[in-house]
Amino acid sequence: MNIDGKHYRTIWLEEDGETVGIIDQTKLPHRFETVQLRTLDDAAHAIKSMQVRGAPLIGATAAYGVALALRANPSDEGLDHACERLAATRPTAINLRWALDEMQKAVRNQPREARVAAAYARAAQICDEDVETNRKIGEHGLGIIRAHAEKKGGKRVNILTHCNAGWLACVDWGTALAPIYRAYDEGIDVHVWVDETRPRNQGASLTAFELGAHGVPHTLIADNTGGHLMQKKKVDLCIVGTDRTTATGDVANKIGTYLKALAARDNDIPFFVALPYSTIDWSLDAGSTIPIEERDASEVTHVSGRLPDGSIASVLIAPEASPAANFGFDVTPARLVTGFITERGVTPATRDGLITLYPEHRKGQAA
Amino acid sequence: MNIDGKHYRTIWLEEDGETVGIIDQTKLPHRFETVQLRTLDDAAHAIKSMQVRGAPLIGATAAYGVALALRANPSDEGLDHACERLAATRPTAINLRWALDEMQKAVRNQPREARVAAAYARAAQICDEDVETNRKIGEHGLGIIRAHAEKKGGKRVNILTHCNAGWLACVDWGTALAPIYRAYDEGIDVHVWVDETRPRNQGASLTAFELGAHGVPHTLIADNTGGHLMQKKKVDLCIVGTDRTTATGDVANKIGTYLKALAARDNDIPFFVALPYSTIDWSLDAGSTIPIEERDASEVTHVSGRLPDGSIASVLIAPEASPAANFGFDVTPARLVTGFITERGVTPATRDGLITLYPEHRKGQAA
Repeated sequence: MNIDGKHYRTIWLEEDGETVGIIDQTKLPHRFETVQLRTLDDAAHAIKSMQVRGAPLIGATAAYGVALALRANPSDEGLDHACERLAATRPTAINLRWALDEMQKAVRNQPREARVAAAYARAAQICDEDVETNRKIGEHGLGIIRAHAEKKGGKRVNILTHCNAGWLACVDWGTALAPIYRAYDEGIDVHVWVDETRPRNQGASLTAFELGAHGVPHTLIADNTGGHLMQKKKVDLCIVGTDRTTATGDVANKIGTYLKALAARDNDIPFFVALPYSTIDWSLDAGSTIPIEERDASEVTHVSGRLPDGSIASVLIAPEASPAANFGFDVTPARLVTGFITERGVTPATRDGLITLYPEHRKGQAA
Repeated sequence: MNIDGKHYRTIWLEEDGETVGIIDQTKLPHRFETVQLRTLDDAAHAIKSMQVRGAPLIGATAAYGVALALRANPSDEGLDHACERLAATRPTAINLRWALDEMQKAVRNQPREARVAAAYARAAQICDEDVETNRKIGEHGLGIIRAHAEKKGGKRVNILTHCNAGWLACVDWGTALAPIYRAYDEGIDVHVWVDETRPRNQGASLTAFELGAHGVPHTLIADNTGGHLMQKKKVDLCIVGTDRTTATGDVANKIGTYLKALAARDNDIPFFVALPYSTIDWSLDAGSTIPIEERDASEVTHVSGRLPDGSIASVLIAPEASPAANFGFDVTPARLVTGFITERGVTPATRDGLITLYPEHRKGQAA
């Protein structure tokens, strides 16, 4: 995607062929700053502190994190330590574990002197695959938006999304936003309702930022608002991303997604989840078994933003003595999901639906 | 209720017998400041700027606003102008209109020289009635909480509430929180999940403040979180307030209430609405016809709170160019409401349920 006319991915290899560049997403939308990752520590910190976030980008960063770690220690122990360290950064997104498995496969059977090169090569490949995967998700989702536009006789199609599942959550394009970018680029009149997504405000700071940068019409709303908009027929469809999807179609995504899915069902509005194959956890049958990350209470009691003088500050919004709880994700049961938009096409949110697209996992049904 | 050992109502007559005192709720929880209202303008500003808010307190403030207006102009025109001016401050809470009707009845047929005294007397009465009404709501709601505590064998009862329907929303006690205060005072082990209630954070700034001041265990959560907590069986019941309830039981309340009611239904959790008789709009059959206030977009794009140095500031959380929409309320259909807790008892959220408690409105069924 383009920022002020320059093309960016969210993660890249710097010219030295070793250092990894990322956009520091904790500074958006107020400052566009890049950060250089040189060590395993840097990569783990970037994921944990959410300088990078979004399931696909977490996976890509973890892949490069393994490469950075192997530069310091290419032994089996070094590899295992890197994978354990990175796996512990965030518990919910399955792409993280998927990417680490891929790195193990790519590196484990290589001689030590070949490991660093093999790791960088596989990490680069994971990034390129992610871009291509998301391009295809965009293509398949475009068909859904186009059908809505046709049904409305060309009138504006209003799409609600939660959190950020755009190019900032991936390497490029995005999952939930990829179809929206494609529709906009094709001249379809689209407008996006952007949930601000408390407590970290990824909707306000990231989704609004990237939609604005691309020129896509959008309106920021408090997370409380989607149900009312749906009741008033101001939402035609919902598209969200996911951090982990079970083999049966249950969807873990940013906290609050479940509430929007309930409202969509109550108002007969299609609710789609866009995801790459790497977000499917074939080992899980029940969404209730997905580990849900709990983060620091200060993310709830404090809100960070820009002061009138341009500086960035964090303000306390609650009584000092009040405790707060901060769950990062919730699980939307498959019964509330209209369908999955994947790189292989659109399919019902059921085990059969997923297996139709991914027949190579049929054996997984016995799991 | 007590603040640092001193008993406060949210609105009172100062010792001069003319000036009206209020707590400036826009400064909470960081500063406890009172404000003096001396004119119609002061009262209208206090309601519109949300120095006072909450349906019952809006009504009480409007009542005193009429008294303040009549001091300057006790004519019929003065009375009508005051009522029009005050009615226009906020569109959704029906208590505002109810209180203005009450003031018209109390004043209209009085000679001009008696109007000011009659207005102050009726305003004081409205305040006293509100306290007594809410005390009774607390009594009736206590039975519900006690039943849950008994069912759980004395284990902690977890109650979720949205926005602020506590004593700060009323003259004293509160509607939704009155039963919770009663239960706590009786020694029942209660804990409250407090929705922060974006965009204005009345949960974080007011509900957490008043529960904390009373010593009631509570935990602040982002508005996105309630569904997840209900799925995980961490919520035993929900109690919220309302700004207007139709004769058929549809409930307009702070934006986001509908989403929580959907989640409660999906998880078989009782969802109660606590309200005084003055919040029922007997003229309306369909919640969809309740006017929904739209407020300034800056309440969504900016968040106000306390900086580390103790000063209060407002931070921008979104890109400067991104538009925002700010709907103040949504409507929860009666089918999602387990029951109403009123000053006359607990009743189903249906026309029949309401008429059973308020038989004097039976004729209203033809409306």
